[in-house]
Formats: sequence, structure tokens, C-alpha cells
Amino acid sequence: MLFDAMDLAATFVFAISGATRGVHKRLDLFGVLVVAWVAGVAGGIFRDLMIGAVPPAAFDNWRYLAVTVAAGLTGFFASHLIDRVRTPVLLFDAAGLCLFAVTGTQKALAYGLSPLMAALLGMVTCIGGGVARDLLTLQVPTVLRSELYAVAALAGAGAVSIGFWLGLPALPTAAAGAGICLFLRLMSIYRGWHLPVAATKQKSSLETD
Amino acid sequence: MLFDAMDLAATFVFAISGATRGVHKRLDLFGVLVVAWVAGVAGGIFRDLMIGAVPPAAFDNWRYLAVTVAAGLTGFFASHLIDRVRTPVLLFDAAGLCLFAVTGTQKALAYGLSPLMAALLGMVTCIGGGVARDLLTLQVPTVLRSELYAVAALAGAGAVSIGFWLGLPALPTAAAGAGICLFLRLMSIYRGWHLPVAATKQKSSLETD
Amino acid sequence: MLFDAMDLAATFVFAISGATRGVHKRLDLFGVLVVAWVAGVAGGIFRDLMIGAVPPAAFDNWRYLAVTVAAGLTGFFASHLIDRVRTPVLLFDAAGLCLFAVTGTQKALAYGLSPLMAALLGMVTCIGGGVARDLLTLQVPTVLRSELYAVAALAGAGAVSIGFWLGLPALPTAAAGAGICLFLRLMSIYRGWHLPVAATKQKSSLETD
Repeated sequence: MLFDAMDLAATFVFAISGATRGVHKRLDLFGVLVVAWVAGVAGGIFRDLMIGAVPPAAFDNWRYLAVTVAAGLTGFFASHLIDRVRTPVLLFDAAGLCLFAVTGTQKALAYGLSPLMAALLGMVTCIGGGVARDLLTLQVPTVLRSELYAVAALAGAGAVSIGFWLGLPALPTAAAGAGICLFLRLMSIYRGWHLPVAATKQKSSLETD
Repeated sequence: MLFDAMDLAATFVFAISGATRGVHKRLDLFGVLVVAWVAGVAGGIFRDLMIGAVPPAAFDNWRYLAVTVAAGLTGFFASHLIDRVRTPVLLFDAAGLCLFAVTGTQKALAYGLSPLMAALLGMVTCIGGGVARDLLTLQVPTVLRSELYAVAALAGAGAVSIGFWLGLPALPTAAAGAGICLFLRLMSIYRGWHLPVAATKQKSSLETD
Repeated sequence: MLFDAMDLAATFVFAISGATRGVHKRLDLFGVLVVAWVAGVAGGIFRDLMIGAVPPAAFDNWRYLAVTVAAGLTGFFASHLIDRVRTPVLLFDAAGLCLFAVTGTQKALAYGLSPLMAALLGMVTCIGGGVARDLLTLQVPTVLRSELYAVAALAGAGAVSIGFWLGLPALPTAAAGAGICLFLRLMSIYRGWHLPVAATKQKSSLETD
């Protein structure tokens, strides 16, 4: 029950990010809805395929469709509002990240993956939607370059896995995992924490390569 | 039997679109065959993964490979002919769209998905091949922007789902679904029917973003 | 046992190619690790999904994660060394190609696919990692254009399938498949063997389209 509510909330937040991208790319209404849907459910679909939970929740539970369509319509008709509230969107996105890190890892553990693999899959669940959104709109996935995004997800997922491995109760473990993830992500947003880039003689080849 | 024939016909038509793209991108013979294969089977593979039909038809039935290779060779050695018959290709593509909308939805229903989710999956089956083709060749998926493409697929898939839900016989339902899909797609091609784009102050950022 | 060692060796080699790409694209340490992981395991994950081997080896066996992380760290901290040894990397990559062609086909046969489909899936296993790496970093997959890459994989996979079909013993068949694949790939690297491109009046539209 709590799991479902957290998973749907994270789906909504990610779908908003997809809808916003679709509007910026000048897609029509349907295209915006598609990118919102993809951003919201791609991570969960990948997770469910990996653990054999077929059909994936996104095709088994109409709530995921309803939530992403609502997010898509919000993004389409209120894009000027969303542009104005940039920081709240970043915060919502950080919240979604933490929720998915926890729920993805929990579901993978429930399907029998080892703690290490469950943490890996929990992280992939977090970043899958954003990667699919970026590829659909032809951008190098931001998660590959931006500040502690996937690392925060991995830390939260790892905390949930370690708690499971130690036999700790589920609820405090989930809270700790979400907290660690949120802390790292906020430090990255507000303090600019980041990882190093390899020392090479080349300049950025991202645009010219 | 009829299902198989329709599914193979749709696969062939989509594979032609992939082969044509591959030739335009100056891929070698093998690259053209790969893009043709991907365009033809990606939607069906995704559908089969979602409903747990493993191995997917594309890896279980050699006819899909034969049909896509035939389409790829046609596209490679007769690309000048295909360029000349632009409208027939669009019409074939519209026919393939309708066939996949019907067969994708029927298969999803047969595997126990609810009518709403089956319609969603039927639509994804239709657009999956085109999206994969566009991503492989680095283009923003045309389905996200072009005129009533996915909407026509969704309408056709929805009609099949509603017919199933009401307990109507399968054949007339399939015909109605295909007819609705074809009508919307043709109206879009010949009359320019389309969906609105969100009102924003920005200009198209697709090329510069 | 031998199968596992060959599969891990191929994973390591492909992960190096992903890490090198990530460094060139100026990704941070984590991004480099992600691209290395994707390049190493994407082909195998696709293969395992197609044959219903769930969870895929990449999420069931920590060695795949260890090997790709090791390759990612090597690529990140020793990128200048790798740039200097261009030919060895090409040779390692060719070795990885042959190993994946053999192991992918063998696993598909073991899960009951027909020889023709197993060869197809063996080839897809080979090129899946490279395609995923190229898409993540927004490049047209090199396999679609480069010299006998996928064709060499297909020839090796086909040899394994034909040997299985004829009831030949597994080990010599695997050696023959790997040998054919390696021969074609080396001829392509050193002699420039390649496939034809379709005759069209257009110039390359890859950059401008």
C-alpha cells in the first residue's frame, strides 16, 4: 500500500519532467503524453523485466497510465507555470529519485535478487526513465554527467540493501535509504558536489564528435 | 492464421520503411538489413516481452526474419523505385499501422491484459518499430511529432479493446478497428489533421538544444 | 565453466570500449562506469530476455558487475595508455566479438531456439552492447557502417548453429565458429574488406539530415 503510493508519486514526478521536455521540444499533445509516460514508467518496466514480474506494473495497473497522463496534461497546459517554479521541480525530482531508489530495491529483493544486485537494479530503476526520456528527445542522458544524480540513487538503494542483509526492519531502513539519497542530491544541487572527470588532453568532444 | 498473415504483412511494410531509411543514411547492405529488421520486429518484441510471450515471435518463427530480409533487400536494390512511389509507401505504412494496432491488441487481450492496457500495448506495438528505427539512425522519433500517427493507432487499438469488452465477435471488431485507424491516418495525410502544440514563448529548440 | 570465463572475458573487452567512449565524451567517473557497464552487459541482457533466462546473468552474477567496474576504472584512470595502444584494443574487441558470438549462440540453443534463430540471437548479443553504448553517447551505431563487424559475428554464430544442427561435438564447433569470426574481422581491419553501399544519387545525409 505504502509501496504503491510511493511508486506512483515517483512516477508522477518523473512524468512531469518528461512532459516539460516534450513541450520544450515542441512536440504535439500526444507526443508530450508519450514522453511523459516513457519518463514515468521506463525505469519500472526495465526493473520488472529483469526480475520476471510480467506483465510489468505499468501494463498491469491502470493507475500508472492515469498518473502519467495527468502529469502530461499538467505539463502541456501549465508549462509556463512549471518554468517559473524551477527549484520546486528539482526538489520534486529529487523526491522521486529517493522514492524509486527505495521501491526499486525493495521489489528486487522481494523477487530474490542478492542485496548487491538489488541495489544495482534499484539505481537503474531510478535513472531508466530519465535515460529513455533523453534518448527519445536526442540528448546525451543528463544522468551521465550531472551532479551526483545516479550516485545519490545508488547510495539510497545500497542502504536499503544493507539493511535487508542485516535483517533490520523494513520501514526504518527505507527511511534511511531515502534520507541518504535526498541528502546527497540536495548537497549536489545546493553545494555543487560532484565527481571528477578523467584527465585528458582533449576538449569536450560532445558537440563536435 | 489470419492473425499471422496480418502480422507478417505489417512487419514487411515497416521493414521497408527501415530499409529506405538505412539507404538514405548510406549504411552498407548489412546495416540496411539490420535497420529493416529492427523497424519490422521491435514493436512486436516489446509487446511479447510485456505479456511474457517468450521467446518473442521474432525469435520463434523464421518467417519474420525472412520477411524483413526480403524487405531489406528490396529497399537496398530498388531504393530508386521506392523513392519514386512516395505515396504508395505512405499508404502501405498506413496499412501496416492498422494491422499492427489490431494484432497487437488482440494478442495482449489473449494473454489476459485488461482492455485499457491491451489498447495501450497495441499502440506501443505500432509505434515501437518506428521509434527504434529513428533512434538507431539518430532522429527524433517522427511519431512524436507527425500528424495523428500514434493517435490513429490508439483509436484502432481502442476499438478492438472495446469490442472485446462488450463481447462482440472478433472479426467485425478487428475490421472496425482497422477501419477507424486507416480513416484517421488518411485524413491526416490528405487533410492535414493534427493535434495542438503547447503555447510557449520559445521557438523550436529541436535543432539547437 | 569455460562458457562463463569466455563470457566474462568478452564482457570485459566490450566494457573497455564503453569506458574509452565515456572518457572521450568527458563524462564524470560514474558516467564512465555506467557506459562501461552498458557496453559490457547490454547484449547479454537482451539475449537473456529473449530466451526467458530471468533474471539475466548481469543481474544474477556479481562477476559481471565486478568485471565491468574494473574495465571502467581502467578506462578512466588509464585512458592515455589505451589511446596509445589502439591496435591492441581493436584486437581485444575482435576477440570479444568472437567469444560473444559463440557463447550467445550456445546459450540460445540450450534454451531451445532453432539453429537459425539462435545464430540471429548470437549476432544480436555481439552487437547489442556496442549499439547501446553508441546510442547512450548519441552516435549512429558504428556496427551499422563499419567493416564486416556484424557479418563476422553472424558467420561465427552461424557456424556454431550449423555444428549443433549436424550434431558435431561442441568444443571443436565453438573453436571453428570463433575462428571464422576472427578471420573475417581481421581481414576487415587489415585488408579493408567491406560490404557494398546502395547506389543512390544523394550524398551522405548522416550529418545534415
